[in-house]
Amino acid sequence: SEFDGPLMRTEVPGPKSRELTKQLGQIQNVIAVNFFCNYEASRGNYLVDVDGNRMLDVYTQIASIPIGENASICILWRRYNHPALVKVMTDSHNLSAFINRPALGVLPPDNLPEKLNAGLLSVAPRGMSRVQTMACGSCSNENAYKAMFIWYRNQQRGHTDPSPEELKSSVINQSPGCPDLSILSFMGGFHGRTLGCLATTHTKAIQKVDVPSFDWPIAPFPKLQYPLEEFKRENAQEEARCLEQVEDLIEKWGKKSRPVAGIVIEPIQAEGGDNHASFDFYRKLREIARKHGCAFHVDEVQTGGGATGRFWAHEHWGLDDPADIVSFSKKMLTGGYYHKEDFLPDKPFRIFNTWLGDQTKNLFLTEVLKVIKRERLLEEVKRSGKVMLHGLYELQARYPHLLSKARGLGTFCAIDVRDETTRNNLIFKARNKGVVLGGCGERSIRFRPALVFKEHHAHLFLNIFNEALAEM
Amino acid sequence: SEFDGPLMRTEVPGPKSRELTKQLGQIQNVIAVNFFCNYEASRGNYLVDVDGNRMLDVYTQIASIPIGENASICILWRRYNHPALVKVMTDSHNLSAFINRPALGVLPPDNLPEKLNAGLLSVAPRGMSRVQTMACGSCSNENAYKAMFIWYRNQQRGHTDPSPEELKSSVINQSPGCPDLSILSFMGGFHGRTLGCLATTHTKAIQKVDVPSFDWPIAPFPKLQYPLEEFKRENAQEEARCLEQVEDLIEKWGKKSRPVAGIVIEPIQAEGGDNHASFDFYRKLREIARKHGCAFHVDEVQTGGGATGRFWAHEHWGLDDPADIVSFSKKMLTGGYYHKEDFLPDKPFRIFNTWLGDQTKNLFLTEVLKVIKRERLLEEVKRSGKVMLHGLYELQARYPHLLSKARGLGTFCAIDVRDETTRNNLIFKARNKGVVLGGCGERSIRFRPALVFKEHHAHLFLNIFNEALAEM
Ligand code: FES
Repeated sequence: SEFDGPLMRTEVPGPKSRELTKQLGQIQNVIAVNFFCNYEASRGNYLVDVDGNRMLDVYTQIASIPIGENASICILWRRYNHPALVKVMTDSHNLSAFINRPALGVLPPDNLPEKLNAGLLSVAPRGMSRVQTMACGSCSNENAYKAMFIWYRNQQRGHTDPSPEELKSSVINQSPGCPDLSILSFMGGFHGRTLGCLATTHTKAIQKVDVPSFDWPIAPFPKLQYPLEEFKRENAQEEARCLEQVEDLIEKWGKKSRPVAGIVIEPIQAEGGDNHASFDFYRKLREIARKHGCAFHVDEVQTGGGATGRFWAHEHWGLDDPADIVSFSKKMLTGGYYHKEDFLPDKPFRIFNTWLGDQTKNLFLTEVLKVIKRERLLEEVKRSGKVMLHGLYELQARYPHLLSKARGLGTFCAIDVRDETTRNNLIFKARNKGVVLGGCGERSIRFRPALVFKEHHAHLFLNIFNEALAEM
Repeated sequence: SEFDGPLMRTEVPGPKSRELTKQLGQIQNVIAVNFFCNYEASRGNYLVDVDGNRMLDVYTQIASIPIGENASICILWRRYNHPALVKVMTDSHNLSAFINRPALGVLPPDNLPEKLNAGLLSVAPRGMSRVQTMACGSCSNENAYKAMFIWYRNQQRGHTDPSPEELKSSVINQSPGCPDLSILSFMGGFHGRTLGCLATTHTKAIQKVDVPSFDWPIAPFPKLQYPLEEFKRENAQEEARCLEQVEDLIEKWGKKSRPVAGIVIEPIQAEGGDNHASFDFYRKLREIARKHGCAFHVDEVQTGGGATGRFWAHEHWGLDDPADIVSFSKKMLTGGYYHKEDFLPDKPFRIFNTWLGDQTKNLFLTEVLKVIKRERLLEEVKRSGKVMLHGLYELQARYPHLLSKARGLGTFCAIDVRDETTRNNLIFKARNKGVVLGGCGERSIRFRPALVFKEHHAHLFLNIFNEALAEM
């Protein structure tokens, strides 16, 4: 069962973490390493490091753990008295999926349709019955872009058969086979680090500098004032400005013969600093995409999987047809994207790679989704999210010189700190008091607990965070 | 233990495969699906499908299974009397790695340095003590390209600190921050399907058409006559022609201000049709790269892991310093790349993503490498490779109207068939006789058995292949 609270034995990183960091430094760049973990000893919302420090985890492996450190085992073992996830692995039928990684596109395992139906498709966004599995957020988005480019060219041609000239020129990277199409993205957006994704990522320079890119349009993302309800008029003006720019850019890129095949956007810009926009903004953006014949791609790699209080963050928008493509990874364990029928290429090997995901992740996801439903974890998220956000409002009222712009949906919350150095110091201080946090944007802290983070964890977190703030 | 030979009950795909294909067709494009597999029933060199057909596997999930279908369990259980791979998974210490997927770059597990040393680094190419794990062949190559771009700009600048102007312009995809650097690749090369990789892939048009690309130089790959030993003079001329073109292209792209930061090449062009070049060609190419200040990247995604009779195919070249970067995936279970010290960025988050691979794949790889060593599987590969190639020579002498250009290193063999339709028919016919094969290039068949493919399997394969040919 879970622990009662943090328990700190050393500074973090402690001596063992520092020693291991030195060892790993012989092999890899270790500047980003926070500390080494003892995952075996970790449980639920608590991450235990190699020095025996037990910390409340409000970062969850960069927002990628759905139901807590070892939580799956823990919950299932205790609550339902059967270790379902351990069973997933030791069941001889599944065991083979761990040891033989099938090439899902050519030699799928017998249970693939069943597991996709019980897993990914059981939580498909409204109106989407197609899903393409991938292995991480980057290949999910790269392939989603390819699907949009193919779709766009099919529209332009009026049919799905590239001409001999297109086929021939494509092999040597030339037009018309490799057309000058573009994807419109937003300043502050993050969609991955492979070259295609990176051309739509605009967060930190160090992620992009020295790497060749594409001449694709970049629209401003609304810079809103928080709390959103208090600045409705100002925010609506700012959003109108950005939407106008979007239309201008689509026209401009069309004129310079690099038409916008698709628009990609996050429901909350996560890496970029937890930047929100109103649901109305997204509804209007969707209409602009439709009007100009651009595909609309919602990147839910970080927001998807329940942390906002709905399974998909874009469900908050209240649109029947919010997207052509919805990509995911992280908490979903497997990468991939849902898509409309039109985005399914009619020829093989256009969207393809050796593995096309990992069946073992589908198996785990199916179990995780069962837990989310049985435990009504989205309800928990709404409750603990309320405690979190309310608490953050209180803290920013108490420390106005340090904190501002508390914001969030569900437990997907963030707050701004005075400046980058202060933000980083605050994260270190909180960590030494037993809370693992991560930054985002220039001076924000993002809160990314697992779905098993309950109201009392939120209170615990707020108390410790308050202590850290008091010492600043 | 393993089966004695193929056993066919239905046509392939049989009724159950066809039914499952229909089901999966509701969710995904299934044109590339061959048949559905029962991985639990599969063993060693035999793949069993859902209709109970048992086939000799000479394709191994697109060359990605190192020691056979379920072989690891099977071998270890029987031979060493301890199910090491099952233990890998059920050991409570490892179990947590399956359930908590750590963000290896920020919160690594305690056993990461140990497992990297016992695994990937124990088979590092000579002179390389650094490895960056990734999750698939595409992110391995994408990040290898980024490492080469960063290295190249560092050389140009004379230091590793981008200017404020570079940093600022990079965020909006513009130069100087996003420089017009290029990667030189070869016609017929395959390096992946994400946008950066795809710009260096030049195999089939359908993999590239409609996707925007980069203006990067593409050199001709030598079109050699086989067997290589019999056409030494002609082949040397052809290789000299290609090398001259490489130098011309480097100069030409330098002049148009898109300098070549790196050259990427496979030791055998696999997807492109199993095109070989002489070891001398590769030695000279390496020197050209050095002379022009370009990084040299050997892509061993398909050739690495032992199938050529050496652990890395490029070890055949007999060079002390063959490469700056060696990328891998497939048989290595984890993706990644080895690199020289200079290709390690000195700042964090330049080469980074959420997971940076998958620790569970490192755990399996460590066990697989133990089996390869204990069982001396590379010796087996050399022996069965000889039987294979010799047998293919005999078959092409017997069916000169059908077959030509038998070629191979170890069991990494291929043969050309008269034309594409005949090739595809031959693959179907062989499959219905109980051998799973895959094509590559326009009219080649590639043979990609696992490392546990022994001489008697090679004889068995040759007999069945002969029967199929006789019926053509
Ligand atoms: S690009 Fe996604 S796993 Fe490699």
